[in-house]
Amino acid sequence: MCCGPSEVSHFKEIIISNNQFFDAITTRQSELETLLCVGLDPDPARFPPAVRKDKEPIFTFNKAMIDATSDLACCYKPQFAFYAANAAEQELEKTIAYVRDLGIPLILDAKRGDVGSTAENYATEAFERYGADAVTINPYMGLDAMQPFLAYAEKGIFVLCRTSNPGGADIQNLVMEDGEQLYERVAGLATQNWNSNNNVALVVGATQPGELARVREITGDMTFLLPGIGAQGGDIEASIKAGQGGGLIVSSSRAILYASSGEDFAEAARQVAQSTRDAINQHYK
Amino acid sequence: MCCGPSEVSHFKEIIISNNQFFDAITTRQSELETLLCVGLDPDPARFPPAVRKDKEPIFTFNKAMIDATSDLACCYKPQFAFYAANAAEQELEKTIAYVRDLGIPLILDAKRGDVGSTAENYATEAFERYGADAVTINPYMGLDAMQPFLAYAEKGIFVLCRTSNPGGADIQNLVMEDGEQLYERVAGLATQNWNSNNNVALVVGATQPGELARVREITGDMTFLLPGIGAQGGDIEASIKAGQGGGLIVSSSRAILYASSGEDFAEAARQVAQSTRDAINQHYK
Repeated sequence: MCCGPSEVSHFKEIIISNNQFFDAITTRQSELETLLCVGLDPDPARFPPAVRKDKEPIFTFNKAMIDATSDLACCYKPQFAFYAANAAEQELEKTIAYVRDLGIPLILDAKRGDVGSTAENYATEAFERYGADAVTINPYMGLDAMQPFLAYAEKGIFVLCRTSNPGGADIQNLVMEDGEQLYERVAGLATQNWNSNNNVALVVGATQPGELARVREITGDMTFLLPGIGAQGGDIEASIKAGQGGGLIVSSSRAILYASSGEDFAEAARQVAQSTRDAINQHYK
Repeated sequence: MCCGPSEVSHFKEIIISNNQFFDAITTRQSELETLLCVGLDPDPARFPPAVRKDKEPIFTFNKAMIDATSDLACCYKPQFAFYAANAAEQELEKTIAYVRDLGIPLILDAKRGDVGSTAENYATEAFERYGADAVTINPYMGLDAMQPFLAYAEKGIFVLCRTSNPGGADIQNLVMEDGEQLYERVAGLATQNWNSNNNVALVVGATQPGELARVREITGDMTFLLPGIGAQGGDIEASIKAGQGGGLIVSSSRAILYASSGEDFAEAARQVAQSTRDAINQHYK
């Protein structure tokens, strides 16, 4: 069951990177013609009543979402906070195992950042305990704090660069003495100093297409995770155009997951996922 | 059982802040004459063999540490990564409940940072699920990402400013167009823009006394959490002198926890905690 308008896409030009995660992503993107990443941000208050009564409501909900979208998604991205708030670590483990059994890559969105010895434990959590294929991390504590993640050469390490929230500007748009803004500096460091294992990618919000274009300019063909379309209001056309020229993973969570809270919730999610994938493909040239 | 050299201390001058967490901390600091925070970073590989065989080794180890140091510690600080790596959320819950039952304040060191709707879930995790009195957060995503934490006016919100790892310089020492470094800007924003609920504190590493003094200059009497003494090599005398003039919580973890891996591990931990508290008090004037 497929696909977006392949006559205008450049999926065939996707480059193999010799990184297990990025290769799995690009292969899947190319085969299914989709850049869509479905974010798994389970909020039990928004589940359909029948799911809410389930013994494992979060896993049941996620499984329904995955089953409804697995041919439309190049990867899944569980957001750690939603599991942590609900004491649902076991349901997170089950969700990740389910996705892996389907052979679909998975990004654990946890935005970790801590000193080296502690970061080692966070890397163990992400890659050994949960078995994620990729993780999001925060650059504020510098290279040595990211090193335990970067040491996993086969994984994808997504460093926050310009985030999708308006307040991201408070710090990320600060202007350095040479005129560069902080997010530009982070993009440069990620490209030149942090990527010796060829496993660094960046999180760049879809809500700021101008800055996304600037990050593309700085980083060459580095892969970007673009959150912020859908519920956060990011413009698909503008952000796809701005982000092209390298790897792109376009993430949507709530707009898909909560398309309906009725019995048709899975079918409604599929429809939104499909139209989102198509809207992305329409502009991916 | 007490205390440091009170004739040279300024504990009596500690100011009541009308924040539940900071008031509990300063009251306890004053009563017990200690600025020491014991970090609970449980690493099962370093536990004494008898503890390692326990059904709940992490909780058992933590309980032994707490029982051995409770009159020496103004608060405890479990580091989330160590529990996450070991799938030990239930032992973290039990540890926190145990500390709370003793009436001792607790900082959950999780360094969270995410967009608003997600940050709400992290705040729920820290304050509702785990019942922490305070939490550490990362400022890279700006004010709106910190707001869900700051909204808990009675809690302590520790924002990363200048961290104790060498790599912290990669980002935090970047120079802005006005000559300020990023950590100075964060200190200024924390003081002027982020503290409307009077619940903001800063994490400032004990490994950089010069920068600690600069943060004190910028922030007035704001409370600092000082990690980095002990195993990380921070100089107690230099950092206490540099940090004085406001609230101080001095954290040590591994040097205390792993003072011995023999049967005397709890007593050895107590001795290191005691000498650390005394060394701090010697310079706290």
